Amino acid sequence: MKKKILMLVCDGLGDRAVKQLGFKTPLQVAKKENFDFFASDGKCGLMDVIAPGIRPGSDTAQLSIFGYNPYEVYTGRGPFEAAGVGIDLKHGDVAFRCNFATVDENMNVVDRRAGRINKGTEELASALDGMEIDGVQIIFKDAVEHRAVLVLRGEDLSGGLSDIDPHGEGPALESKPLVKGAEKTASVLNRFVKKSHDILKDHEVNKERSVQCLPLANIVLPRGGGVVPKAKTFEELHDMKAACVAGVTLIKGICRAVGMDVLDVKGATGTLETDMLAKAKAALQALKDYDFVYVNVKAPDICGHDGLVQEKVKVIERIDKMLGYVKEHMPEDVCFVITADHSTPLTVGDHSGDPVPILIYGGDVRRDDVKHFDELSCAKGALGRIRGRELMPILMSITNRAHKFGS
Amino acid sequence: MKKKILMLVCDGLGDRAVKQLGFKTPLQVAKKENFDFFASDGKCGLMDVIAPGIRPGSDTAQLSIFGYNPYEVYTGRGPFEAAGVGIDLKHGDVAFRCNFATVDENMNVVDRRAGRINKGTEELASALDGMEIDGVQIIFKDAVEHRAVLVLRGEDLSGGLSDIDPHGEGPALESKPLVKGAEKTASVLNRFVKKSHDILKDHEVNKERSVQCLPLANIVLPRGGGVVPKAKTFEELHDMKAACVAGVTLIKGICRAVGMDVLDVKGATGTLETDMLAKAKAALQALKDYDFVYVNVKAPDICGHDGLVQEKVKVIERIDKMLGYVKEHMPEDVCFVITADHSTPLTVGDHSGDPVPILIYGGDVRRDDVKHFDELSCAKGALGRIRGRELMPILMSITNRAHKFGS
Repeated sequence: MKKKILMLVCDGLGDRAVKQLGFKTPLQVAKKENFDFFASDGKCGLMDVIAPGIRPGSDTAQLSIFGYNPYEVYTGRGPFEAAGVGIDLKHGDVAFRCNFATVDENMNVVDRRAGRINKGTEELASALDGMEIDGVQIIFKDAVEHRAVLVLRGEDLSGGLSDIDPHGEGPALESKPLVKGAEKTASVLNRFVKKSHDILKDHEVNKERSVQCLPLANIVLPRGGGVVPKAKTFEELHDMKAACVAGVTLIKGICRAVGMDVLDVKGATGTLETDMLAKAKAALQALKDYDFVYVNVKAPDICGHDGLVQEKVKVIERIDKMLGYVKEHMPEDVCFVITADHSTPLTVGDHSGDPVPILIYGGDVRRDDVKHFDELSCAKGALGRIRGRELMPILMSITNRAHKFGS
Repeated sequence: MKKKILMLVCDGLGDRAVKQLGFKTPLQVAKKENFDFFASDGKCGLMDVIAPGIRPGSDTAQLSIFGYNPYEVYTGRGPFEAAGVGIDLKHGDVAFRCNFATVDENMNVVDRRAGRINKGTEELASALDGMEIDGVQIIFKDAVEHRAVLVLRGEDLSGGLSDIDPHGEGPALESKPLVKGAEKTASVLNRFVKKSHDILKDHEVNKERSVQCLPLANIVLPRGGGVVPKAKTFEELHDMKAACVAGVTLIKGICRAVGMDVLDVKGATGTLETDMLAKAKAALQALKDYDFVYVNVKAPDICGHDGLVQEKVKVIERIDKMLGYVKEHMPEDVCFVITADHSTPLTVGDHSGDPVPILIYGGDVRRDDVKHFDELSCAKGALGRIRGRELMPILMSITNRAHKFGS
């Protein structure tokens, strides 16, 4: 009988030997009876999300876990950010992440985030959305705070061009083609940025900000451009109806880009204060309508980036509480996977290429003798050391969904 | 923070179950508290240097460990021997290992090593170096004892040709092209060998040998020809300034060929009598100026080739003493790797495809519960079973030098 899959990805969960924790990892020292329950009754291993030693981005990591080859389908973060704010992308669109920023009269960037503007961005975005430059359609939408996304839609566009964003103070850059055939796209992008300045500098929102002595959001700085790749949806790849529960825009965007339904969960904020129990409840509820439910909890990654040792331990203990709820309420026929999209070691403050622990639990899944869910215990598990892209095929077989090769 | 890397490769260290050792390996029976210290505080694993079951040569093994695909860049041993004696090679050169040998009047090889000649080879080599045949420049240089290297430099040369060396007694062979386009190279090589006989047979050095009733060094027998491949240097690949401490010419040659600085260490002979402590001191000193320091200790391989059971155990114990010095004097921020380039089992007397033990130690490296550095204990380590070519990416991530893929 085919089984359903519940997958919990704890963002940045993997870690290294931390001196303050007696050279143990946060997972090794946290009290986590429910993690350990699933580990004890399941099988464990380590996973190189992309390949050994490769440092995954959040985007390439999720793609790999979903069964895609990121070296083929990843073109840049833009398309996923655009999908994350709900833009329906088409193959061939070129999408960018953007900031509303402040430039002085010489077009020097003086604040890359326009004072972290968080009001009026919808109006500013509307003023830019829908124009056409050189036959190319401009789709522009605001995102969280000072962030926005830009999509160029037209013929013969390319994602191979340099950023406008100087990634610091200094003159707003001119985008240059990095590959042959990107000249037109670079030209359209440069004209769009100039127009954004012309339109935004006198916008009502900025007049109001001027009165309040706030930095003006008088330009748009695109970066991370990428063409929307032609790729199968998750459902086409795996023949499973899939839903996602996540707080972070990028994660939602990736899930939406591969065709998953992104569920709206109140309190799922993608921050340290996220309502984990609400996510668990939503995920278990979704298992009634979906074959595959993906849950991403961002909090461990935040602790890793900020070097918050005790907080990372506590976040793990909070996830453990959520797992207690899952243990109580999970239907019997579900295959439950717990893993991470990458390690974000406290000693590094960024993603690393260290492999992540993984466990697979449920029904007739082989049970190894690993008793604890951590990087070192899982290394001894029956799953061995796998790669991210192998996970979906392994799960397809475990849930009796895989096709036989041969007869 | 980026860390530096110290890598110790114990040549041929891996072994099999040896009856005289109670079916244990030399590593299992040797007293080696310092190996075990690093194993206890680091993470361990097994490494298939090329791929499972593939028997590595010394050359292909080092290339793989340095992050190259030997199936792409390895064309034969000649180029590395040539680099080992200090010849600056160019992409497209074809290089050969050679012996000075003795042929009778019918051009039958009667001594492949000319009585292991060890005097006068520099003069003999000079007599051959610098000539031109069919527009091809001949570079010829003596190496250790009866050994020498030949480099052909010119247009349209190929490494795909058969050896002149009969690898035993019998007629000196004629080189034949093994691939299309190697006809010219084979012809030049054959003419060079004939000329070597014409020039050497009446050379002063041989007149003197004749008086002393020593076998004449009256011909050169090339073998192992290979074209110098176009490959990135180690520094281009990994953005690390690298140095090598080794005694063996071939190892030095490989390191020089990939652009490492080969350090001159007094007493580093590449024999059983090598001064290991001098190597350790030189390596630790070099860490001040280099990001990556590579140390090769040849002795275990020699014991493996010669079936010297107790000697192999003792060599391991001598390396352990050297590790004691490293332990005392290693800077804190260094990532230390101990492994082998291949197994040379006592029961085999040659390189085998058995995976080699590996440990990675230092700072925030995850610490597994492996307490002993040997083939069986390491198999249970958190590093799992990796391949030689994955080692550099893994180390790049561990030392915080890797680039993120995605964002």
